[in-house]
Amino acid sequence: MATSTIKFGIAGLGRIGKVHLANVHRYCPSAEVIGACHVRDEHSVFAAKHGITTFYTTYAEMVSDTAIDAVIIASPTTYHYEHIVAAAEAGKHIFCEKPIDLSLEKVQRVTDLISKSGIHFMVGFNRRFDPHVLQLKAALDEGKVGKPQIVKITSRDPGPPPLAYIKTSGGLFLDMAIHDFDMARYLVSDEVVQVHASGSIFGDFPLAQFDDIDTAVVTLTFKNGCMAVIDNSRNSVYGYDQRLEVFGAKGLYGTKNITEDALFARDSNGYHAAKPKHFFIERYAESYRNILLDFVNAIQQNKAPAISARDGLAALTIAMAAKKSLKENQVVALL
Amino acid sequence: MATSTIKFGIAGLGRIGKVHLANVHRYCPSAEVIGACHVRDEHSVFAAKHGITTFYTTYAEMVSDTAIDAVIIASPTTYHYEHIVAAAEAGKHIFCEKPIDLSLEKVQRVTDLISKSGIHFMVGFNRRFDPHVLQLKAALDEGKVGKPQIVKITSRDPGPPPLAYIKTSGGLFLDMAIHDFDMARYLVSDEVVQVHASGSIFGDFPLAQFDDIDTAVVTLTFKNGCMAVIDNSRNSVYGYDQRLEVFGAKGLYGTKNITEDALFARDSNGYHAAKPKHFFIERYAESYRNILLDFVNAIQQNKAPAISARDGLAALTIAMAAKKSLKENQVVALL
Amino acid sequence: MATSTIKFGIAGLGRIGKVHLANVHRYCPSAEVIGACHVRDEHSVFAAKHGITTFYTTYAEMVSDTAIDAVIIASPTTYHYEHIVAAAEAGKHIFCEKPIDLSLEKVQRVTDLISKSGIHFMVGFNRRFDPHVLQLKAALDEGKVGKPQIVKITSRDPGPPPLAYIKTSGGLFLDMAIHDFDMARYLVSDEVVQVHASGSIFGDFPLAQFDDIDTAVVTLTFKNGCMAVIDNSRNSVYGYDQRLEVFGAKGLYGTKNITEDALFARDSNGYHAAKPKHFFIERYAESYRNILLDFVNAIQQNKAPAISARDGLAALTIAMAAKKSLKENQVVALL
Amino acid sequence: MATSTIKFGIAGLGRIGKVHLANVHRYCPSAEVIGACHVRDEHSVFAAKHGITTFYTTYAEMVSDTAIDAVIIASPTTYHYEHIVAAAEAGKHIFCEKPIDLSLEKVQRVTDLISKSGIHFMVGFNRRFDPHVLQLKAALDEGKVGKPQIVKITSRDPGPPPLAYIKTSGGLFLDMAIHDFDMARYLVSDEVVQVHASGSIFGDFPLAQFDDIDTAVVTLTFKNGCMAVIDNSRNSVYGYDQRLEVFGAKGLYGTKNITEDALFARDSNGYHAAKPKHFFIERYAESYRNILLDFVNAIQQNKAPAISARDGLAALTIAMAAKKSLKENQVVALL
Repeated sequence: MATSTIKFGIAGLGRIGKVHLANVHRYCPSAEVIGACHVRDEHSVFAAKHGITTFYTTYAEMVSDTAIDAVIIASPTTYHYEHIVAAAEAGKHIFCEKPIDLSLEKVQRVTDLISKSGIHFMVGFNRRFDPHVLQLKAALDEGKVGKPQIVKITSRDPGPPPLAYIKTSGGLFLDMAIHDFDMARYLVSDEVVQVHASGSIFGDFPLAQFDDIDTAVVTLTFKNGCMAVIDNSRNSVYGYDQRLEVFGAKGLYGTKNITEDALFARDSNGYHAAKPKHFFIERYAESYRNILLDFVNAIQQNKAPAISARDGLAALTIAMAAKKSLKENQVVALL
Repeated sequence: MATSTIKFGIAGLGRIGKVHLANVHRYCPSAEVIGACHVRDEHSVFAAKHGITTFYTTYAEMVSDTAIDAVIIASPTTYHYEHIVAAAEAGKHIFCEKPIDLSLEKVQRVTDLISKSGIHFMVGFNRRFDPHVLQLKAALDEGKVGKPQIVKITSRDPGPPPLAYIKTSGGLFLDMAIHDFDMARYLVSDEVVQVHASGSIFGDFPLAQFDDIDTAVVTLTFKNGCMAVIDNSRNSVYGYDQRLEVFGAKGLYGTKNITEDALFARDSNGYHAAKPKHFFIERYAESYRNILLDFVNAIQQNKAPAISARDGLAALTIAMAAKKSLKENQVVALL
Repeated sequence: MATSTIKFGIAGLGRIGKVHLANVHRYCPSAEVIGACHVRDEHSVFAAKHGITTFYTTYAEMVSDTAIDAVIIASPTTYHYEHIVAAAEAGKHIFCEKPIDLSLEKVQRVTDLISKSGIHFMVGFNRRFDPHVLQLKAALDEGKVGKPQIVKITSRDPGPPPLAYIKTSGGLFLDMAIHDFDMARYLVSDEVVQVHASGSIFGDFPLAQFDDIDTAVVTLTFKNGCMAVIDNSRNSVYGYDQRLEVFGAKGLYGTKNITEDALFARDSNGYHAAKPKHFFIERYAESYRNILLDFVNAIQQNKAPAISARDGLAALTIAMAAKKSLKENQVVALL
Repeated sequence: MATSTIKFGIAGLGRIGKVHLANVHRYCPSAEVIGACHVRDEHSVFAAKHGITTFYTTYAEMVSDTAIDAVIIASPTTYHYEHIVAAAEAGKHIFCEKPIDLSLEKVQRVTDLISKSGIHFMVGFNRRFDPHVLQLKAALDEGKVGKPQIVKITSRDPGPPPLAYIKTSGGLFLDMAIHDFDMARYLVSDEVVQVHASGSIFGDFPLAQFDDIDTAVVTLTFKNGCMAVIDNSRNSVYGYDQRLEVFGAKGLYGTKNITEDALFARDSNGYHAAKPKHFFIERYAESYRNILLDFVNAIQQNKAPAISARDGLAALTIAMAAKKSLKENQVVALL
């Protein structure tokens, strides 16, 4: 029996929503996004061009449509929780952008809800699906490094998002570093028991008023003794800096930055080469593509997607602990 | 007035024909391949999936169809000449894979034919459209290196093509190095006046019977004194090695290999990283895409495509000279 | 007036003592090591070969010799304090290996003693004089990075020292990471206000009995908000890993590992190159040389040496705080 | 029985003579340079400081001194021949700088003379003793590349020597590329059967009057089919570019440039690192040291030095062929 095509409805056609929509349209032969809700006028042409035929007035309307098998939730974080609950009640599978929510309680409830429902749920930590990260993880799983002892993650944005976005984002740890917390858990294959965070404001943005920072160093300690250290900045003048390193008894494996081009130059000032790719959507283009293919595949094979609600909860828990560690200037224990 | 969509017919749905077809289908919003001729049964599903609606019995039938604006000639080299002539007579624009033909006389005739016809013609030296090569060329054009003095091109295949292919390919210089000859002309922006070639057989293939080699070093001397040295091998065990370097009074610009992934490892044996991408279709995926977009754009704007029949003739002339130089073990003058 | 040659006495002819002796002999035209005390039989040939003519029975005898201008203290750390006091009382300039002592009180007393005496004192944080570090520091001082925001120091030994050594060494923070603490202060040009340390035992050595660890991650927070993160291991299978990175508003400057050789290879498994130099005496050969030249120069010009007793005290203070942070699992404030 | 110390006389205390003198003095425990002839006043202090005690008025006087075991000939090339003959007649071992002479006949005579005499002779192709080259050669000898198929040598000077020097130097091939010709023979372990050279003048120097060039590309064909391509320039604005690559059935081995420092930077313009070391004496400091140690060792063990007069002859023969190839614009066969 042939598996049937998965029909998606999508909530949110902002930057990320568009990425998901275009990826399904272009790269996912066994899925289609057929419907969207609350589509603003300026997005309707893009939507129609990428296969959307039904425009719902409300999210409720969309999830009650029996033609829809699953939803992509790319709405602002504030709406995630209600969108998840409504989809789950309607029995639709759910792909939800990170973070699931900014409240631990709500994410805990999502986790419970999902585990009781028969639906498949995946949270959008797309970086796990970056081809280079997949290779790194495979090397770790083959034991090439041995048990991880030190993990180093450098994750620096080329510039801060708009203040308006920052204001409701939950701050650097919940909005940005949460990807790195998930990555650390993924690479170490273990749970974090302790968090220490330091942070500063170095850039121009008046972040103090939002209790936010633009620069941070976080140390995670895992149950197995491994330490992960993450350094973040919102102000990397040389582009989007994304580096991973895993050190163990057998050596070191890591991923380099992906650069804008393969040119090199030598002149009287020295050796020169290109910067890292500048923008996360460009740098992680393939991982955005791969994660949805994986989700579609999981639904069709009726198996659990690779990243669960529990993974979303775990990353959020670390992010909240980092926030607390910074605020109270102390080590925060988890578990 | 909006420019109308370009309608292509395609001749040849082998490896390269499929690449072009898929690229137009996926990446070329202002063009479609609507027809193909002589399609073998095993290719018809692929063809239909990528938008081909008309299957012609003969090439003549295809070029006489008024719905067709232009042809992509990806047939075996032996057919190029007659396909070009028929398309030109029918007033269709022509994108032709390299080499135009293995005979200098025929290529000369094509050049004449095109210059007299009103049609647009482009020969498929796609590497000029590799994003890294484009950047390199831009740097050269901005004068960042100064006048080129030494150009180094390393171009090594991961393995030889089938003997059956080699037999009619014209040999290493006409089939493989012709890309590098075109690249040298492109980077130096000048004409070659002299060619010296050395060559050997190191691999297992019985190439001597075809008067062919698997390893070569060719030196080109340009009118302006610049020297280009090209080294080729059919047997690069570490993958597809594609490197360019241009040296001048202000320094050196070049392009590195594109590697399979961005992993690195350190262990007790040293430092390790990935090989170059293995296959030319993978390595030059973007250049295949870009060259057709450029051709479509040229037609729509009614301007000469970036690579002319004369460029095809010049590269072939160098290749023939290299062949002669190797055979007669002497320097061969051009012009 | 010509400056006269500086005459040294040396205490300790172990591994490091020999390095200093040979460096003065070979590279220091304006200094000589003329005497040594307590020289074991097996070291006397080496000593004589490198210019030592007087062998004193006791340290006291050596520092009372009027022919001696200055001492190099390369004795075991336990003796440093008394050797410093005796030399200071005898009015000899002092070059002392790190750490000055394992007790904060004693190092404080040394600092006071030196500031009251007219002698010149330098502590052997030789890495500051590594040519690459000097270049990095010069770039920072020229403002090329802007104010440092994040400093990353990776410092991993190729293997642990003998257990007997570890036992009295003061542990990873006081023996090994103290170099990195000094380096962080040097690069940031500011004082540390807070320390957080994590640590684990991953190797075979029974370090728990000595309250020691083999792997650590330490975060230092500076008065100016800069964060430095240091990761250490005693078990780096790929050699001696010594990397520095300083990130600021204008970009990133750092130093790469110095590798064993400049070979590279490409084969069917990928790209390969050499490991970092294996041993600290080899890696920092030039910095050991340069630091003594600097000390001799300071004496001859009667100016303060580049690294003071206060620097020794500051690094030790950080190391003690790291020890405390690890033990009590909390953030430790300084100042 | 202990081998006795080798006593050298040196002819020529210019740039290279001084390098050899200082190297013997500093790094050669089993040899001394005790005498020199024709020492100019401005060099006598340097000479005395490095152990020279006897200053001879003539070269003849020096080689007739029974205290002298061997000579280092670092005089201008014009004197090499007579210095070699006189030393050989006096039974002194000979270390002679490259080239032995600019005349093939004379070098042939030297080769004959040496083979009949009982003395040891070595020509100063020091680059063979560069630590990185030694590693590369070891890898080749272990068969890691397989039989060499393509050798690439890039050898570019940071600037031309003075015109006065160029005038009598024999030109780019005999003065500069001769090192590369020797290197190619050394790496391939075979003899050259054919030479093709191209060349141009790109810099400001009026080299045409001396029949000289500043830029060249030379292809060597070896008996075994291997091709070596050498590109030279006198005007490398980014420093002294010295790169080797050997390609074979098993892959590629090579040596990278040695850079001025290990710094790297990332800023809004990209990635930056240091240039190659600028000057050949700095770049090849270790090979100058090692070659003399090897020569001394050969004498003491009474075995043939690693580089013979025949090697000098072979390299010169290639250089002359390159000169002829360029002049006559044709391929030149050897053997």
